[in-house]
Amino acid sequence: MQGSPISYSDKKYQVLGTRPIRHDGTDKVTGRAIYTNDVHFPDMVHGKILRSPVAHARIKSIDTSAAEALDGVVAVVTVKDWPDLKDKMADLGEGAVNLAELGANCMAHDKVLYKGHAVAAVAARNVHIAEEALALIRVEYEELPSVLWVQDAMHENAPILHPNLRTDHMGKPGDHPTNIAKHLHFETGDVDAAFKSADVVVEREFKTATVHQGYIEPHNSVALWNEDGKLKIWTATQGSFTCRHQVAELLQIPISNVTVTPCEIGGGFGGKIAVYLEPVAALLSRKSGRPVKMVMQRDEVFEATGPTPGSYMKVKLGATREGKLLAGDATLAYDAGAYPDGVIGPGCMCVFSCVELPNARVHGYDVCLNKPKTQAYRAPGATQAAFAFESVMNELAESLGICPLEFRLKNAAKEGTRRVDGPVYPRVGLIECLEAAKNSPHWNTPLEGPNQGRGIAAGFWFNIGLKSSVTATVNHDGTVNLLEGSTDIGGTRTSIAMQLAETLGISAEAVHPKVVDTDSVGYTDVTGGSRTTFATGLAAYEVGLDLRKQLCQRAAILWECDPSEVTFKEGTFVHQDKSLTFQQLAAQLPETGEPVVGRASISKDVSTNGFGVHLCDVEVDPETGKVRVLRYTAIQDAGKAIHPSYVEGQLQGGAVQGIGWALNEEYYYRDNATMANASFLDYRIPTCYDLPMIDTIIVEVPNPDHPYGVRGVGETPIVAPPAAVAAAIYEATGVRMFELPMSPPKLWKAISEKNA
Amino acid sequence: MQGSPISYSDKKYQVLGTRPIRHDGTDKVTGRAIYTNDVHFPDMVHGKILRSPVAHARIKSIDTSAAEALDGVVAVVTVKDWPDLKDKMADLGEGAVNLAELGANCMAHDKVLYKGHAVAAVAARNVHIAEEALALIRVEYEELPSVLWVQDAMHENAPILHPNLRTDHMGKPGDHPTNIAKHLHFETGDVDAAFKSADVVVEREFKTATVHQGYIEPHNSVALWNEDGKLKIWTATQGSFTCRHQVAELLQIPISNVTVTPCEIGGGFGGKIAVYLEPVAALLSRKSGRPVKMVMQRDEVFEATGPTPGSYMKVKLGATREGKLLAGDATLAYDAGAYPDGVIGPGCMCVFSCVELPNARVHGYDVCLNKPKTQAYRAPGATQAAFAFESVMNELAESLGICPLEFRLKNAAKEGTRRVDGPVYPRVGLIECLEAAKNSPHWNTPLEGPNQGRGIAAGFWFNIGLKSSVTATVNHDGTVNLLEGSTDIGGTRTSIAMQLAETLGISAEAVHPKVVDTDSVGYTDVTGGSRTTFATGLAAYEVGLDLRKQLCQRAAILWECDPSEVTFKEGTFVHQDKSLTFQQLAAQLPETGEPVVGRASISKDVSTNGFGVHLCDVEVDPETGKVRVLRYTAIQDAGKAIHPSYVEGQLQGGAVQGIGWALNEEYYYRDNATMANASFLDYRIPTCYDLPMIDTIIVEVPNPDHPYGVRGVGETPIVAPPAAVAAAIYEATGVRMFELPMSPPKLWKAISEKNA
Repeated sequence: MQGSPISYSDKKYQVLGTRPIRHDGTDKVTGRAIYTNDVHFPDMVHGKILRSPVAHARIKSIDTSAAEALDGVVAVVTVKDWPDLKDKMADLGEGAVNLAELGANCMAHDKVLYKGHAVAAVAARNVHIAEEALALIRVEYEELPSVLWVQDAMHENAPILHPNLRTDHMGKPGDHPTNIAKHLHFETGDVDAAFKSADVVVEREFKTATVHQGYIEPHNSVALWNEDGKLKIWTATQGSFTCRHQVAELLQIPISNVTVTPCEIGGGFGGKIAVYLEPVAALLSRKSGRPVKMVMQRDEVFEATGPTPGSYMKVKLGATREGKLLAGDATLAYDAGAYPDGVIGPGCMCVFSCVELPNARVHGYDVCLNKPKTQAYRAPGATQAAFAFESVMNELAESLGICPLEFRLKNAAKEGTRRVDGPVYPRVGLIECLEAAKNSPHWNTPLEGPNQGRGIAAGFWFNIGLKSSVTATVNHDGTVNLLEGSTDIGGTRTSIAMQLAETLGISAEAVHPKVVDTDSVGYTDVTGGSRTTFATGLAAYEVGLDLRKQLCQRAAILWECDPSEVTFKEGTFVHQDKSLTFQQLAAQLPETGEPVVGRASISKDVSTNGFGVHLCDVEVDPETGKVRVLRYTAIQDAGKAIHPSYVEGQLQGGAVQGIGWALNEEYYYRDNATMANASFLDYRIPTCYDLPMIDTIIVEVPNPDHPYGVRGVGETPIVAPPAAVAAAIYEATGVRMFELPMSPPKLWKAISEKNA
Repeated sequence: MQGSPISYSDKKYQVLGTRPIRHDGTDKVTGRAIYTNDVHFPDMVHGKILRSPVAHARIKSIDTSAAEALDGVVAVVTVKDWPDLKDKMADLGEGAVNLAELGANCMAHDKVLYKGHAVAAVAARNVHIAEEALALIRVEYEELPSVLWVQDAMHENAPILHPNLRTDHMGKPGDHPTNIAKHLHFETGDVDAAFKSADVVVEREFKTATVHQGYIEPHNSVALWNEDGKLKIWTATQGSFTCRHQVAELLQIPISNVTVTPCEIGGGFGGKIAVYLEPVAALLSRKSGRPVKMVMQRDEVFEATGPTPGSYMKVKLGATREGKLLAGDATLAYDAGAYPDGVIGPGCMCVFSCVELPNARVHGYDVCLNKPKTQAYRAPGATQAAFAFESVMNELAESLGICPLEFRLKNAAKEGTRRVDGPVYPRVGLIECLEAAKNSPHWNTPLEGPNQGRGIAAGFWFNIGLKSSVTATVNHDGTVNLLEGSTDIGGTRTSIAMQLAETLGISAEAVHPKVVDTDSVGYTDVTGGSRTTFATGLAAYEVGLDLRKQLCQRAAILWECDPSEVTFKEGTFVHQDKSLTFQQLAAQLPETGEPVVGRASISKDVSTNGFGVHLCDVEVDPETGKVRVLRYTAIQDAGKAIHPSYVEGQLQGGAVQGIGWALNEEYYYRDNATMANASFLDYRIPTCYDLPMIDTIIVEVPNPDHPYGVRGVGETPIVAPPAAVAAAIYEATGVRMFELPMSPPKLWKAISEKNA
């Protein structure tokens, strides 16, 4: 069921809300779209990486002589070929980053910290020779004990990854080695007093597994380091400027010496922001004087790029008998993976984000352990926290004897609600999403079979603002070329172009959007944080205003009047009884002077807020613990759905990924700390055969920080599913699950124990 | 000898006038620059064109069935595959163009009009199969009589190329078929009376041969017509937007459906403005669904692209005994080639452009004949006219007993001089060039040997203005990315970037210029008319002002003052005692708000004017007629030489091409109207083995229409050489030559006749 959005605005639009064919559609379906692997140079060579076979070891020596001597090998690099990054920090757009750690994650320094950690790289005439050469590199390791689970890693006697890491330990100040890289603490109100006055309190512990974004396209990169010191990179990245900046800092060259061309991307979901291959390919190119292509295999993607953290969480909520939440306390400990700076921050900010909670406390821990460095994965950190929080909410509602939907309505975050980390919400749409759920066919259709259950959960994610730039030129056939720096992962070429089209009173098809390289457009931040349609869309709106202003001046030349006497109304330039459409005026532009070029840049400090509510029906096979999703509805406030089909697609995609977390996906480790399921055959992502059609309901509560009311929608839909599925499983089986994934063996065991 | 420019300005610059390494230098010398032939797609096919073996014929039938049936052939196109362009006109930037003729020159309609005229095209898996397929196409021709010489073509009984062409004939109105497509007439003063009052009158007739630009890179094109109707073209062109416009009009599709990516270009000189292969490759791509690459062979370049016209000219000049010019009368008849609209217009405008001439008359004729359609070639039409005019000037000076340099000084065009076609010169630098010649080591060093002679001639060419757009973005490392639409033929990336650098107070190397495709920058007119450094440079200056203004605003944010209180002085932003260089301010920009993006577009109706004077010493072997150039000096007013090495290079290149016209180059036709020397082996362009170093003297008389005084310099240097060489030959041998080329057989014959 995909219907019209439920709108809380009376604004009428010509282009927004329609469903034109996406601008990159033909190229995608005809195979003409250029992905990194399509980039080819006549003298190109191929790079491969030698990776650590063990999870934790000191590197005693590396001997590359035999590899270098192999016929067809043109370059070998190890840590010796990198600039010294010790103690170097850089602000890569969102705060200071430790370059030594970023570099060491691309190629190990003195220690390897996880299985798959890069140790050396080879470039050769072809991939086969490169692989042969890898086998000739001799590395002596001194193996060290390893740790894979966050609570184990926090233990005082845990194997230590970074001997120089000194921080407080579980909140206690100290100066002994630790794996705890960061401790966060947010607190508001008087939590302990509030718990004392609560009528009902529920406290539970939760665990989640490490899961991967599972993008179809593996990481890849082509680098050409020219003899004038200019470095060109073609890659699949969520942020071409972020990539440029990381590469320049890691290689200690000026940013303007680096040009990043963002090729089409086969999925990112947060995992294609950090660089892995780019600087390595660059070093191989510098050494060989040849363009170097590197493409990961699937096992490398799983074992050596950033999944989202496994986590340990404890959440406690207290409420009055009438169902008013009084207090919340949460402890979240997330994997950072091998290097500090995981996604604990947003986890802490999101855990209580869906409710009005006057007394709340959050402690968060960023913990290093011997797994790949974690990265963002769609609403990074929020899904784990929501699994814990929303599960406790459902249990609390049951304890109170209140419908979980009504319980959420009673306590929903709304305009004026202060989040535990400080910000006060402007107008948001959670209540409207809950109302939509309440009125939905799904919620009002009773379940019929045995072993069936229905669950509900809410979810929240920010939209970050940051910086975006666009330029636009007017063609005399009445079309507009739009250049943007935001890489297009989920259809943003179209959602941005439509905002420009609306502003100019032309069709979506009359705007030709193009994502260009870092030399060809102003600085633009990463495609992430659900910011692109919101923030780059805002830049597109502003470039539309810029063009409109110039076109009014041109119309004034044609009409021999003052520009102030020309107005733009309903897609038409008007002066007294004279009028011209955009197309008509564009055709006359050449006679009126210089070509019309628009530009706009934005820098938004505000973030805006997206809420969703998910409903899930399941049927559980008690004999096997296998869960079948019968029906699923994702409801979300899109502010204004620019292109409803894409919003629906984001809701569906996010829900499916969240269902994957809930039921199947996990990094499964052998006793020797190596991953046993590093392939899509064994790491089981849900497919269309596993799931019903995901229904969607779009709610439109306009975002006051955007002229068209847009909210980003990409991330929120992954947040609610695990908790919604858990709630449905509970209704179907009477078993509450506190650990992800709720895979058949675990669920079967839990059912068996309950029945025993 | 390459010295410092002789400057008539006291302005001091930091960047202008220096000689940095060109921005595209490394890519060019390391082979990394991307030419069209480097563009490759996995499923690309190769196109070849079937060309007429005869100079004039009616096409009775074309049978492509055998070619279509050949294994490996994916598409065959003939005139049937083209849209109907009958009676369609389009303004392609410089006046209305007959699309039917433009199209018919790319592929013949009912008639072929010259040997080499395209008749059909094939795309196949490889070039060899395509050539095999061409041999299978059966064309029935009904041969017609042909005409190759302009005076023959003007004859009343000449074979007629275009039966519908009706115009006046040699100035007499009429309505009979003709090959004369256009008759121009400019007249000022009372010419006949002035001749009557003249003390000395000289009248001479001249002929010049058809010559080719001789660019190293043949025409080539890759076209991909996607299934959504979007057409992408990669090509070597002087004007990507002109190419886009021509292709769109010829194929009758919207311009915004066409994206032209201008690849690096291996020479153009005016010959790479008209399209030949682009629409054919597009049609083959549409038909086959594959990307199509087409590359001409050298004989195709000679026989089927546009050389510059052969010409017949009569020039008469009258002067007083004291050496004051009184009257001039010129008749110029230029080949248009197979289709109307040759370069007769500028020929007429330029013929008297170097002198103050109160009474002048010019008649010009644009004449169709059975040779390829002519095109621009460096100062199109001016070199022929100058050969005639400057030769008569030299003869007149001799008759008057006045030094030819002093005679020119006495009559030189200057500020206020009215040209025969109307415009009045602003400040120009001809007198300053003549003075520089007079003071030059060359002029003041006597000749020493027998059979030696020295010649002098002047030359003139416009700089057109037209439209250019640039955008620029500031990187936080203090560099600026500059996007431009002007294709770079002669180093304009650097000459434009230097103007931006000067404006911002940064180094040339801190600007990164990039020529981008037609989707990625505002409309920009062709690289031609010596406009690029002048006009796109002006846009670069203006984008610099735009960035400066924005940066003042940012400095004001940092300094908490009003933007009006921040000034830009000598490369530094200043407020009271605080100052920041561009680099320092750029580093702080991210904190001050949105990314800084500049844009500028210009549309200049004015043209500016470039004058030059050439000195040539030769030695003639009277036994063979072979001419050796002993010494050559090209002197020119550059207004302001942005990068003196490039100006010198332009002067040298132009002079060498003009010497080629003078001594060697010509289309040599067999009796059957086919070209006998369509290869670089037989069409003899001068090489470095044939010539001495060409000395240059740059004069700088600032152009009042440009903030830095820039004048374009690319075309003027080809204008003077044939007349200068002819004058030197006369001094060496006593023989006046009235026909180009003055090749050994012709000169030997003339010397023999004189001696007889």
